[in-house]
Amino acid sequence: MLVKYELLKECSETKARLGKLHTNRGVINTPIFMPVGTQATVKTMTPEELKEMNAEIILSNTYHLFLRPGHGLIEKAGGLHKFMNWDRPILTDSGGFQVFSLGKLRKLSEEGATFNSHIDGSKQELTPEKAIEIQNALDSDIAMVLDECPPYPATREYVYNSLKRTTRWAKRCIDANNNPNQSLFGIVQGGMYQDLREESAKELLELDFPGYAIGGLSVGEPKNLMYEVLEYTTPLLPKDKPRYLMGVGSPDALFEGVEKGIDMFDCVHPTRIGRNGTAMTTYGTVNIKNAKFKEDFTPLDSECSCYTCRNYTRAYLRHLFKANEILGLRLMTYHNVHFLIDTMKNIRKSLEEDRFMTYKKEFFDKYDQS
Amino acid sequence: MLVKYELLKECSETKARLGKLHTNRGVINTPIFMPVGTQATVKTMTPEELKEMNAEIILSNTYHLFLRPGHGLIEKAGGLHKFMNWDRPILTDSGGFQVFSLGKLRKLSEEGATFNSHIDGSKQELTPEKAIEIQNALDSDIAMVLDECPPYPATREYVYNSLKRTTRWAKRCIDANNNPNQSLFGIVQGGMYQDLREESAKELLELDFPGYAIGGLSVGEPKNLMYEVLEYTTPLLPKDKPRYLMGVGSPDALFEGVEKGIDMFDCVHPTRIGRNGTAMTTYGTVNIKNAKFKEDFTPLDSECSCYTCRNYTRAYLRHLFKANEILGLRLMTYHNVHFLIDTMKNIRKSLEEDRFMTYKKEFFDKYDQS
Repeated sequence: MLVKYELLKECSETKARLGKLHTNRGVINTPIFMPVGTQATVKTMTPEELKEMNAEIILSNTYHLFLRPGHGLIEKAGGLHKFMNWDRPILTDSGGFQVFSLGKLRKLSEEGATFNSHIDGSKQELTPEKAIEIQNALDSDIAMVLDECPPYPATREYVYNSLKRTTRWAKRCIDANNNPNQSLFGIVQGGMYQDLREESAKELLELDFPGYAIGGLSVGEPKNLMYEVLEYTTPLLPKDKPRYLMGVGSPDALFEGVEKGIDMFDCVHPTRIGRNGTAMTTYGTVNIKNAKFKEDFTPLDSECSCYTCRNYTRAYLRHLFKANEILGLRLMTYHNVHFLIDTMKNIRKSLEEDRFMTYKKEFFDKYDQS
Repeated sequence: MLVKYELLKECSETKARLGKLHTNRGVINTPIFMPVGTQATVKTMTPEELKEMNAEIILSNTYHLFLRPGHGLIEKAGGLHKFMNWDRPILTDSGGFQVFSLGKLRKLSEEGATFNSHIDGSKQELTPEKAIEIQNALDSDIAMVLDECPPYPATREYVYNSLKRTTRWAKRCIDANNNPNQSLFGIVQGGMYQDLREESAKELLELDFPGYAIGGLSVGEPKNLMYEVLEYTTPLLPKDKPRYLMGVGSPDALFEGVEKGIDMFDCVHPTRIGRNGTAMTTYGTVNIKNAKFKEDFTPLDSECSCYTCRNYTRAYLRHLFKANEILGLRLMTYHNVHFLIDTMKNIRKSLEEDRFMTYKKEFFDKYDQS
């Protein structure tokens, strides 16, 4: 069965919407934040901990798993879910974004991309067919088409050619797809050009994907420009399909994305900054390594109910970081992922209760104090 | 209240004994293995995980906590238990072993030891009084006297002077002790000389400690020599007091130690080798990074019931190590600590059922297959 989006409610003040995404591995409440498990593990966390913090779906990276341990091995293991002991839904990206990010280490053609592995330097190829072959083998619940993501800034001509290629590749992905349980999402390109977004959306809608991502954003453009693009792009997408904004996970972008009608988000932000000692809290970000927390025996976030905040003080967390103890990375990661999941839960609740914009104001009145 | 040892049963074939150690924070079943939480955390683990694997007591290191974050800070936090969120018993060492291990970086005198911190190079002093002051502040359940631990090999004269000093320091520790809830254990020295062990034990027994450690072992001597020393030293100790063999944790040494009448053990061995990718299993040690486990979809230890073995394959664990993922360190640590705790539980059961030597043979018939 393919995923099916159920629209529960549209916000009266904004484009925000409340919904459910039905999958073969359970129902996901949207809008939702998906923690990232790049290499078949959400860094430092166990699946049980992710469930404890109510993670309903995670993302994993095709590029990384293709290179190591290899999709063939994961297929033999019984698929990615079994390999990593996670029985809730998984979304995999196409690997394209990582390959294109390699810069001079990759070459792009109509066929696909060739590149050198960051692990052993070996020459590798990623085509639309290959991206699907890998994701079919991983057996994720949601797969993404291979798209071409233009940099920012990029000329209209570049972006035009890129979106045309993205459509051709999308068709090749559909043709290559061989896993009936996997829902393949299309990716709308078109850069910062409204008419090109319209053209891309029109072409992809004809292919009738079960869900759509808005690609080519969060690539270096100013945030206001991203919000502007979202503002005119989401209305181009069907109401009965989920909308996914790739690679976005800061609190301001989550609220703005929801406001523009986005249902799904993912980002390494909470796990990455957590391992660097930064926490997102009700009252803004906290760098736990700061000397002022040396004898601070209060919780990381006084309004948080997560495992870390219930059991440990800032002084202890700071000690763990100063002493290079792994438990510090775990506890900060736990808090940050919990924080975003919890914030999304509160966003959904505010949508249900018709007070999304009020909640947004309340949230940032506190968050921006830091 | 000081700890109180209850002798439940003596083994008919060996010097092994089954007992309970009553503490202010619950009863410990002996013989027991104590996981090591050097810097106020058992590396990579949470307290909840340690409880899940039935850790009844942990050890923490005075030297490390003195230098970072400082015992003053931990005292302000409400003591080590509260600081690290562990409400079961904690044993702290005296810091002496770590200071003496600094070699040329430390100077030894009758007063104590001066040394340079491994963290910032600052000059520090550890005297018997200081070792007690620190441990009193940490508020551990069991504290250790500062002793002088001779290297191996060492002349009879060196060891003689050292044990005499250890007795003088033991008295100074008793005089300095200011925490009525903390049980201070004496440490028998005497190196590999039977008559010196006798002299040390005699002198320390006069000081009537609530427990005794056998020090100066596992310092580079052949294992058989250590077992020989244990064989004649444990009978020198009172039957109604617990006996602790410091820094020992390989399966063979645990069985031999129990056989010679030891009740308590600690060692960084399971956590350290785990983080290096080595597991202790029913069928011997396994280096998970080995290529032969690449497509091994069986558990780390087919006879183990721990979280790691119930949920993950060798192939996945190997992937986590190859990809430098922290979850790999967690899962291997979990298994190894669980393995030793479980082995000690089985040892206690075998003592209860009068089949300790049979169990020992069964254990090594399997373990030595690797």
